[in-house]
Amino acid sequence: MIHTISGERDFLEFLRGKPAHFMLGMSTTRTCETEGITQAGIPGKIHLTPTLDAELLCSGEVRSLGSMAETPKGVPSPALITRAVHLCRPFEKLELLDLGCAEKPRLRYFPCHDFALAPSGSIQNGAQIDALAVFERGVAFGQEFVSDAEYVILAESVPAGTSTAAASAMALGYNAMEMFSSSFCAVPDSIRKETITKALLRAKRHEDIFAKLGECTDNMLLFYAGFILGSRKNGLKLLLAGGTQMAAVLLIVNSVVKTMGARFDASHVALCTTGWIYSDTNSDLKGLLSLLDFKINAYAADFDFRHSEHPALRLYDKGEAKEGVGAGAALAYAMLNGASPRELTQKIEELLR
Amino acid sequence: MIHTISGERDFLEFLRGKPAHFMLGMSTTRTCETEGITQAGIPGKIHLTPTLDAELLCSGEVRSLGSMAETPKGVPSPALITRAVHLCRPFEKLELLDLGCAEKPRLRYFPCHDFALAPSGSIQNGAQIDALAVFERGVAFGQEFVSDAEYVILAESVPAGTSTAAASAMALGYNAMEMFSSSFCAVPDSIRKETITKALLRAKRHEDIFAKLGECTDNMLLFYAGFILGSRKNGLKLLLAGGTQMAAVLLIVNSVVKTMGARFDASHVALCTTGWIYSDTNSDLKGLLSLLDFKINAYAADFDFRHSEHPALRLYDKGEAKEGVGAGAALAYAMLNGASPRELTQKIEELLR
Repeated sequence: MIHTISGERDFLEFLRGKPAHFMLGMSTTRTCETEGITQAGIPGKIHLTPTLDAELLCSGEVRSLGSMAETPKGVPSPALITRAVHLCRPFEKLELLDLGCAEKPRLRYFPCHDFALAPSGSIQNGAQIDALAVFERGVAFGQEFVSDAEYVILAESVPAGTSTAAASAMALGYNAMEMFSSSFCAVPDSIRKETITKALLRAKRHEDIFAKLGECTDNMLLFYAGFILGSRKNGLKLLLAGGTQMAAVLLIVNSVVKTMGARFDASHVALCTTGWIYSDTNSDLKGLLSLLDFKINAYAADFDFRHSEHPALRLYDKGEAKEGVGAGAALAYAMLNGASPRELTQKIEELLR
Repeated sequence: MIHTISGERDFLEFLRGKPAHFMLGMSTTRTCETEGITQAGIPGKIHLTPTLDAELLCSGEVRSLGSMAETPKGVPSPALITRAVHLCRPFEKLELLDLGCAEKPRLRYFPCHDFALAPSGSIQNGAQIDALAVFERGVAFGQEFVSDAEYVILAESVPAGTSTAAASAMALGYNAMEMFSSSFCAVPDSIRKETITKALLRAKRHEDIFAKLGECTDNMLLFYAGFILGSRKNGLKLLLAGGTQMAAVLLIVNSVVKTMGARFDASHVALCTTGWIYSDTNSDLKGLLSLLDFKINAYAADFDFRHSEHPALRLYDKGEAKEGVGAGAALAYAMLNGASPRELTQKIEELLR
């Protein structure tokens, strides 16, 4: 089952049975080096998380490191879920977007689009992103992008990405501090708040929205906001695969469009996340989406690990990790193609053996 | 398992594992308002059956009415079976043809082709169809129609459609009165016969076959006959999803081709129906197909509700409802893609909860 968070179920019903094109946007920011801000990766190696997620998703192997990316408590990366979906109900295409990786994934054959972007700075000291340029690269890529598939799933791997997302939304004037989720169950609020507060102080010094974002965002958010606007022409349907980070992408779109005095028709776009984000009491995805000036279709895959005995997986049901690498949209894709929760759980467990 | 009624099993074997494009032709005729002629719908709301069937099939929801279309005895619409198939083994595309609906289905994103056709009259008082024009619209649509899929499943929802089908065949001179099926187990023979007799008296006043059909047919039969002839050029394979109504479509094709002094090669067309039609002793699908001057591949999905305890579903096994909304071809499609009868039964039961 798939919950409708906002909008109509028809968008997703229309995609039932259709092959999907899966894109993973990979980006590293120095924000993730702030101690205790994220558990999306191996301590000391968190900057490698996007690289490792891409390797696991595409090849089933973690190549740029000895063992799989695990958080200190042993919560496996949500890349595992997306990989299991790809084994049960394969995506028709898998492509990577290098939006500033610390290291390129060690993969052959899989297209990895390069935009000459480096990892961005920590938002505590200024992200130092040429925000307009990254956004425009997203627009250009969206304009040129063609696919045989009916829709593209846009996923992300950005460690500490919910912190940059929260800072981006607030820098644009949205009152959203308490609405963003975290990979932690017990959110490290003081570290996070301190980081975001520092970022917002820097952003405030600017008037222009791209100048503000240049201080406090990440490349993925900007690039995807551009992609959404650039791909409007070609009629391609987009499924934003994530929770509050993808809401931040939409808030950037909203602000850009408003600044231009235009209106945005989002009927070709939807957001899809996990049930863990949907039921998270520490964040408010629905609240974030209600800040948009346009209507948006948003869904959550009704999947949890109730059929699993695996202690590492049961941590998801306790609120750890929650989302990433498009896990929620991937689960919805699998279900739209006839996979049962039990089949998916078994495949995920197999990957942990 | 799938039975071969006539022709060779190779047509269907060739389609094994291939994605399908599913089209639902929706048409309402005032014939369905004749009391006791059909149980395909809710009394007083039978004209809405095609609309509700389309909504249920595409979205899983009945939107233009409070509750699901059920016959007085509580036999759920065969749309339920086709929906369950779409959940287990999704069709790649679902499209609708408005061939004269009382109300448009309340659906977004799903293409609904409009041909500016209104519900037709009761065949008791003259259907008042411009039969040649509707047929030609079918030809034109078939000529233009392209699909990425290897084949198109042509399904229908036309309440009282077996009565208009019987009248159409007989108006064209086929001796077929006892051969047509009914949604009832105990066929309301007198009402039906009386209706058809009145229609035939009107049809007899004309010489031209389209003038005859204009008195006693429905838009779906004419449009699909045109579609079959129009789509010959593009090499597309067609699976006529239904029982005796689809046989009537083929009889119309047969008469049109004969009138033109031509021959028809039906090697790109097949008919596929349910096991309930196949084993129905009150109708004779095989007999109808034997009236054709061309060879036709015809099949029946070997599926029944022996694995179900649900009383409403067991009524199907007693001969109620039998076919509609492409249920038979949908079941065959699911089996051709690896679904087991048990899996399908479970999914259908889930939908009734």
